[in-house]
Amino acid sequence: MRYKRSERIVYMTQYLISNPNKLVPLTYFVEKFKQAKSSISEDVQIIKDTVVKEGLGSIETVAGASGGVRYRPQMQREEAEAVIQEVTTLLQEKDRLLPGGYLFLSDLMGNPTLLKKVGKLIATIYMEEELDAIVTIATKGISLAHAVASVLNLPVVVIRKDNKVTEGSTVSINYVSGSSRKIETMVLSKRTLKEHSKVLVVDDFMRAGGSINGVMNLMAEFKAQVKGVSVLVESKEVKQRLIEDYTSLVRLSDVDEYNQDFEVEPGNSLSKF
Amino acid sequence: MRYKRSERIVYMTQYLISNPNKLVPLTYFVEKFKQAKSSISEDVQIIKDTVVKEGLGSIETVAGASGGVRYRPQMQREEAEAVIQEVTTLLQEKDRLLPGGYLFLSDLMGNPTLLKKVGKLIATIYMEEELDAIVTIATKGISLAHAVASVLNLPVVVIRKDNKVTEGSTVSINYVSGSSRKIETMVLSKRTLKEHSKVLVVDDFMRAGGSINGVMNLMAEFKAQVKGVSVLVESKEVKQRLIEDYTSLVRLSDVDEYNQDFEVEPGNSLSKF
Repeated sequence: MRYKRSERIVYMTQYLISNPNKLVPLTYFVEKFKQAKSSISEDVQIIKDTVVKEGLGSIETVAGASGGVRYRPQMQREEAEAVIQEVTTLLQEKDRLLPGGYLFLSDLMGNPTLLKKVGKLIATIYMEEELDAIVTIATKGISLAHAVASVLNLPVVVIRKDNKVTEGSTVSINYVSGSSRKIETMVLSKRTLKEHSKVLVVDDFMRAGGSINGVMNLMAEFKAQVKGVSVLVESKEVKQRLIEDYTSLVRLSDVDEYNQDFEVEPGNSLSKF
Repeated sequence: MRYKRSERIVYMTQYLISNPNKLVPLTYFVEKFKQAKSSISEDVQIIKDTVVKEGLGSIETVAGASGGVRYRPQMQREEAEAVIQEVTTLLQEKDRLLPGGYLFLSDLMGNPTLLKKVGKLIATIYMEEELDAIVTIATKGISLAHAVASVLNLPVVVIRKDNKVTEGSTVSINYVSGSSRKIETMVLSKRTLKEHSKVLVVDDFMRAGGSINGVMNLMAEFKAQVKGVSVLVESKEVKQRLIEDYTSLVRLSDVDEYNQDFEVEPGNSLSKF
């Protein structure tokens, strides 16, 4: 079966786009298309030019025997602004405020189209970090963590607040919840994270940062290095935050539970674009 | 800015592949490329031919004012066999068996590359069903549900076994766990699922089917129609299963907890290809 250039380009584009941050050996395409390496390289160049021109990211070419091509997605500032605006508009809907100053976020966390965009935004910020895993806290952080991980081509590690038989042997820590001051427990399966891993922590909501601080302590037990913390929504109300270095998409402020009123403004993520 | 055909094809391919099951108006491409509709249609035809030829699915063209093009991914039987083989090999690793005949699955459920494939496999089976949402049970089903939902372009609805303030007002049911015979509770936020929705239930593991049966009862409270049930692993040991109509990727049998031994065989999913 002979392939025309246009056919090769369709196939290679879909393959690279479907496998972000994965090094694909050029020989894979050479063998599939039974075509000289020089032609395949020309195809790659065409894809590369368009990807760059359209601000979709970059196509890296790694030379040598273990080399190949890799698609590294990237979000442009304009698109990041649009995503943050979309999240803001969604959050400003009525009746989202819950007792205790929490926000109802389950619909956002269950929306794959929105999550893909938010995941790409967060992945873009941490693209240059050397990372081994994305760490999150059950339950609502999971879908967001996967959205980020799928762009960065990394595994997701889920910390639980309860211990289940299905986790196998675990390491647990106790921590003080930043807002309620209650002592809670966090549990992580030993098998899901190698010692000395470099991780990015992703979660849906941060108030005082007690949970994230718990994650930090648990990561210390695994001798892991936390290279970043990123949340969808941070609550600005908190005076003394336990975590200083983090990125957030949006920031919640002026929460008035009685009148179901609050403000949403862009977080500090935008400054990274 | 003028675009060459090859550039348009790269852009359109990446756009359609990144937005599966979404109807994209042709005018979107016409305006972006400032090109006649006839040229754009020719571009679409080239993409369509390659997508079909390579067994990647289909590109549907919907005529009329509200029409456009839609990429419907599809997995071929050969690829489905390879995915099931990959899952089987992973499950056969030592030390996966946990007390009570459960399997350690957290690493699989945290692997985005594997989940993309499994999600595409399950999505292919239910592609022709009219669906409004993917329903799953926290915690481990979430990532798999999102992998399926992202192919079908549907929202994910997460049922919890505990009640959290962040869920807002909820509906709950009690059910009897199929294996332990204990009474447990399931909770679903009222706002996450519209009444009379058509849903596909996705989970990681099924033994007697008590949890899934609980989901069925909870769906009845929402007047929802369950159009299918799909699990990654089913346990064959169970004599009386509460759920009859489901698909599974793999089947676990001959579980010998004492000797840490068990068999993994393909489930009934393959018969759908």
